[in-house]
Amino acid sequence: MPLVKKPINGMKDILPPEMRLRDYLISLVKETYRSFGFTPIETPVMESLDNLLSKQGGDNEKLIFKVLKRGEKLRINEAQTEEDLSDSGLRYDLTVPLVRYYSNNEAELPKPFKALQIGPVFRADRPQRGRFRQFYQCDIDIIGEAGNLAETELILATCTLLNKIGFKGFKVKINDRRLLTATADYCGVSRECCGQMFVIMDKLDKIGMDGVCRELCEAGFEASVSEKLQAFFAAFEGGKPSLDLFAELLGNYADPEIVTNLKSIIAAASSADGAYDLVFDPTLVRGMGYYTGPVFEIEIADFGASCGGGGRYDGMVEKFTGRSVPACGFSIGFERIITILLEQGFKIPDERRRVAFLIEKNMPGERMAQIISEAGELRREGCEVSLLTMAKNKKFQKSQLEADGIEEIKEYFINPIQ
Amino acid sequence: MPLVKKPINGMKDILPPEMRLRDYLISLVKETYRSFGFTPIETPVMESLDNLLSKQGGDNEKLIFKVLKRGEKLRINEAQTEEDLSDSGLRYDLTVPLVRYYSNNEAELPKPFKALQIGPVFRADRPQRGRFRQFYQCDIDIIGEAGNLAETELILATCTLLNKIGFKGFKVKINDRRLLTATADYCGVSRECCGQMFVIMDKLDKIGMDGVCRELCEAGFEASVSEKLQAFFAAFEGGKPSLDLFAELLGNYADPEIVTNLKSIIAAASSADGAYDLVFDPTLVRGMGYYTGPVFEIEIADFGASCGGGGRYDGMVEKFTGRSVPACGFSIGFERIITILLEQGFKIPDERRRVAFLIEKNMPGERMAQIISEAGELRREGCEVSLLTMAKNKKFQKSQLEADGIEEIKEYFINPIQ
Repeated sequence: MPLVKKPINGMKDILPPEMRLRDYLISLVKETYRSFGFTPIETPVMESLDNLLSKQGGDNEKLIFKVLKRGEKLRINEAQTEEDLSDSGLRYDLTVPLVRYYSNNEAELPKPFKALQIGPVFRADRPQRGRFRQFYQCDIDIIGEAGNLAETELILATCTLLNKIGFKGFKVKINDRRLLTATADYCGVSRECCGQMFVIMDKLDKIGMDGVCRELCEAGFEASVSEKLQAFFAAFEGGKPSLDLFAELLGNYADPEIVTNLKSIIAAASSADGAYDLVFDPTLVRGMGYYTGPVFEIEIADFGASCGGGGRYDGMVEKFTGRSVPACGFSIGFERIITILLEQGFKIPDERRRVAFLIEKNMPGERMAQIISEAGELRREGCEVSLLTMAKNKKFQKSQLEADGIEEIKEYFINPIQ
Repeated sequence: MPLVKKPINGMKDILPPEMRLRDYLISLVKETYRSFGFTPIETPVMESLDNLLSKQGGDNEKLIFKVLKRGEKLRINEAQTEEDLSDSGLRYDLTVPLVRYYSNNEAELPKPFKALQIGPVFRADRPQRGRFRQFYQCDIDIIGEAGNLAETELILATCTLLNKIGFKGFKVKINDRRLLTATADYCGVSRECCGQMFVIMDKLDKIGMDGVCRELCEAGFEASVSEKLQAFFAAFEGGKPSLDLFAELLGNYADPEIVTNLKSIIAAASSADGAYDLVFDPTLVRGMGYYTGPVFEIEIADFGASCGGGGRYDGMVEKFTGRSVPACGFSIGFERIITILLEQGFKIPDERRRVAFLIEKNMPGERMAQIISEAGELRREGCEVSLLTMAKNKKFQKSQLEADGIEEIKEYFINPIQ
């Protein structure tokens, strides 16, 4: 019986042209982030379900690929639930594994610990165009730095990377979760309901203030909430406010230290000579519930959706160790960037020259040794050289090689033409 | 409740020093193999169980981590066997996925197709020192080249890589499965039993000819088999025979074309200016049953076990496509090489200079901009620069940074000492 040719439903084979681009991007990511002192680490793709289901992952926890228990631990006939059949699964992000890794290896890690992770994560999402069940994430995190140098370095490093890739004039939006809470306080929304309010506020760019008010109303918020929010944002006259104006309007609701902290980050991370804008956005929420302080998001004009983001999540390490450790991270949308570059027809800079040697069959040993030495010379000079058996239909073979991007073809005959 | 700190049983967290070495080795692998025209590819870590259990994987098929079905497909109460609960699993090697990949994407791939794969594979082996349930494999394969240029390029590329890593004077042993079969014919062993005979012969280096004869006897082979084998190998007077002498002794049992083919590979792949020996070894078997022609294995003196190997497996693509396509591969023992290099205290060449800037808390914006610009300058020059908040106990902080390998520490105060 022939075997199954297709990859698992929702997963994909990466073909050579895309793979060359991915390799290029991964090198650039490693080189850039390493220059900022981030050190690459790796964790297993499998994690215990206790950790994966610890409520850090939000809806992703519903999308876990669970791994069947083995040996004596697997009792199929007695099993009633998935938990009877499985105690581990494939990671759905790199944050839970990072925090576990830090907790497990803290004594051997530098302080603060600046980690770089690039690797596959898995989500059993409904397969759809451009969205796969195995995909790469690319995260940098700083654990153990309470001060805003963490946020500054994360933003600087990521913007430097995006500039190196060739993205110019993009925007990094920044906010602080605690200013969102202050806004909720100002509008008279209780702590229990503010999460729901933030989700709606997050849509301001898309649905406008009228849309936000309508959704707040539909969600059961009192009319006074919409009114206050509307009046508050009206003060900016449609545009995004300066942080100073925003703080002034919030008055006592906003802790001045939070505002000062955010201003320092914006000043410091704007000071590099990169081609990007760092702007305060009071409606920026970022989905994950674990954020506790500044949050940020990359917006590349013309590409719609976000190309990455992050923020401070000071509470998470405590869940593993029982001891509070500050932490802050930034994740770029690796797959999204790959998609954009492929769509743009991105040319990898400094690609090596690709050469094929077509060698007649049964080439005698001595000549073969010469040919191999010649290939070695070109390889040391930085070319990609393939030694291939000359086909009977040489013309077809050469046209195929050219179509595949081979730039130079050399032919070697047993009896060289005199 | 605190969460689980340890990685999944039998899997490991990779700490920064090992990770730097792995990244270095992976770059070297990619750079070297690309110079030989191999193109990196990637397949999902999950494969369908139909493929994984197709008898290509030998005993590894018993070690598969199976993934639980999801949604409506999972009927726990009706399930009787593992097959009712799972239809996919984690790959245990890169060969089955490669062949599936080739079958699925053949029309879009160059001919011959020279693939490079580096990635994690998974085996639920009994955990033991130095052996993990998730580990990396690193394979190169040439699909669609029937001639021995495939073997030659695989061996040349891998030896070039090992030389670049710094291994000198190692040995590549080579044999042909069909010569093993000829030896079995010569000894009067039937085709059904020769697999078992090869497994025993493979131990010649370790247990000597007496040991081989004893094990053959214990396995139920007739005494005449041992006698013939003993007489045959006695003709080499203890040493390894030349391929010519070996062929002469086998006489009509050995197909002259197979011998000529092997001689060409040895001549061509020995001709590079690398520091290694390529030697014919008539007892080399290589475990996997799918090999059909030449097989090879790397032996690095002082390191005992094999550091990699491969061979021709012309039959495997046919299992997916129903159409025969020649194929040949070489796998280096990635994890084994990492272990050796770590044990040797290997120093990564041209490591970047690591610098830390200790910055006093609440540094004013203008000074901060200067510091960031200074860091940017060093980063562009190739240093790894970390911006850190100066700790209260600065002496302790500096000693920690030095212990972590930071080579230069610069201090920045709000009021620089006059």
